[in-house]
Amino acid sequence: MHAVSGPVTPPTAPRRAPRIGIFDSGVGGLTVQRALLAALPHADTLYLGDTARVPYGTKSAETVTQYSLRTARFLLGEGIDLLVVACNTASAVALPALRQALPVPVFGVVEPGARAAAAATRGGRVGVIGTPGTVASGAYQAALQAARPGLEVVARACPLFVPLAEEGWTDPADEVVRGVVRRYLAPLAAAAVDTLVLGCTHYPLLEEAIAAALPGVVLVDSARTVAAEVAALLGEPPGPAWPAGVHRFFVTDAPARFLAVAGRFLGRPVEAAEHVDV
Amino acid sequence: MHAVSGPVTPPTAPRRAPRIGIFDSGVGGLTVQRALLAALPHADTLYLGDTARVPYGTKSAETVTQYSLRTARFLLGEGIDLLVVACNTASAVALPALRQALPVPVFGVVEPGARAAAAATRGGRVGVIGTPGTVASGAYQAALQAARPGLEVVARACPLFVPLAEEGWTDPADEVVRGVVRRYLAPLAAAAVDTLVLGCTHYPLLEEAIAAALPGVVLVDSARTVAAEVAALLGEPPGPAWPAGVHRFFVTDAPARFLAVAGRFLGRPVEAAEHVDV
Repeated sequence: MHAVSGPVTPPTAPRRAPRIGIFDSGVGGLTVQRALLAALPHADTLYLGDTARVPYGTKSAETVTQYSLRTARFLLGEGIDLLVVACNTASAVALPALRQALPVPVFGVVEPGARAAAAATRGGRVGVIGTPGTVASGAYQAALQAARPGLEVVARACPLFVPLAEEGWTDPADEVVRGVVRRYLAPLAAAAVDTLVLGCTHYPLLEEAIAAALPGVVLVDSARTVAAEVAALLGEPPGPAWPAGVHRFFVTDAPARFLAVAGRFLGRPVEAAEHVDV
Repeated sequence: MHAVSGPVTPPTAPRRAPRIGIFDSGVGGLTVQRALLAALPHADTLYLGDTARVPYGTKSAETVTQYSLRTARFLLGEGIDLLVVACNTASAVALPALRQALPVPVFGVVEPGARAAAAATRGGRVGVIGTPGTVASGAYQAALQAARPGLEVVARACPLFVPLAEEGWTDPADEVVRGVVRRYLAPLAAAAVDTLVLGCTHYPLLEEAIAAALPGVVLVDSARTVAAEVAALLGEPPGPAWPAGVHRFFVTDAPARFLAVAGRFLGRPVEAAEHVDV
């Protein structure tokens, strides 16, 4: 026997599954988690919804950055290997601060969404819809220009889309839904965009109504692109027999309201969420 | 000359104007301040909008109580003589905790609104509309029963009314406004209520649209009742020459968004607001 220095891993020891932190202002980030689970069924996840402070979309960049750092540090304390900022507003304004503060890789949803839209557009006219905070930040506009200089970008804040999605008023045949969607999207229809970024995690629930208002327009949901980029970093699971991941949910407000709607966003039941004060 | 012990006030010295603290989750409480300024033009006011954590209406009672105590203690540190909790949700769930914690009188908006509605109804069927938090608390329902036992009460949460008011979509002829208002108020129309409590400080901005959907129904805005009760406690100003009050505004998020809409709610310009971290 030789003495060895430093940690060694026997070649046959099971590796630990990757542990992904997912952070959102509320429940909407579960649509991003849904895409991550489809791409990485073996990963463990820790989801934190900052439900006591939701929404971020109407708050200042300083306040959103402060809250984002607090929640990210909590997840870091739980041993995550990387962080996905599922909230578009936090991705738009807090990513540099998060990348500076955290010793693990940090993925946002803005850059992947912008890259996907830049690849999808044929005519070079791209629309972006999001919260007032996301649109005011100009983050999508900048990321689209970086991905493909010369793109024509039309951005529009749609503050009523989040409460519509949370009310479950998403039926494209509903006159209220149709009226709100058409009003917000009229400038994008007038600008003849051929691609539209759904720049808020709630908006995929309104996808049918949005598609009905903008026929023929490619809708880009950044969740799938983020999931593909995370999967590329983490690599394939060691084998088909690798067990399914373990998923924990944390919220900063009482869990009841989160649990009542979480399943609709994640596409599978969410049984429990732990209340934390961060 | 006699020696006197204890503080004395010469009869001719000007008394200090009363200093009223007004607290709301955001900008809506300015409709209550508006009524207070009309009733008590000589009072000084300190308004705090917890704009970093708005809205309260979708959060749990525990979280709303915790935030309410923090903001109330800040105002107490500024020397207020009494506190008006302009936020219906905080009035509904946090009033006992606030009254226990503060050494000054605390007014909510729920009890005055309920008393006004109980006095106004002729048929004994009263509707209440508010945030999910206010309606779920049952506070209006209990206060109405206390004010007049045997009243029939129909309560309904209207989560889209706040974003509609903040978007400025309040025109009763607007098809979206009409559609949303009719949908929420349909159960109240079916129950044939003759009186409706506007149980959220944003709702007076939708008063015309609500009145159009419920013709003949008496609409009760608790702001005026609260102002009258505060005025009764404070008494008349010492004389007509008493100068107009001084008004300061505090917000917990960056002031820009607050200042952009504050004038519409207060009915007079709001020039500046100070950012505080409470």
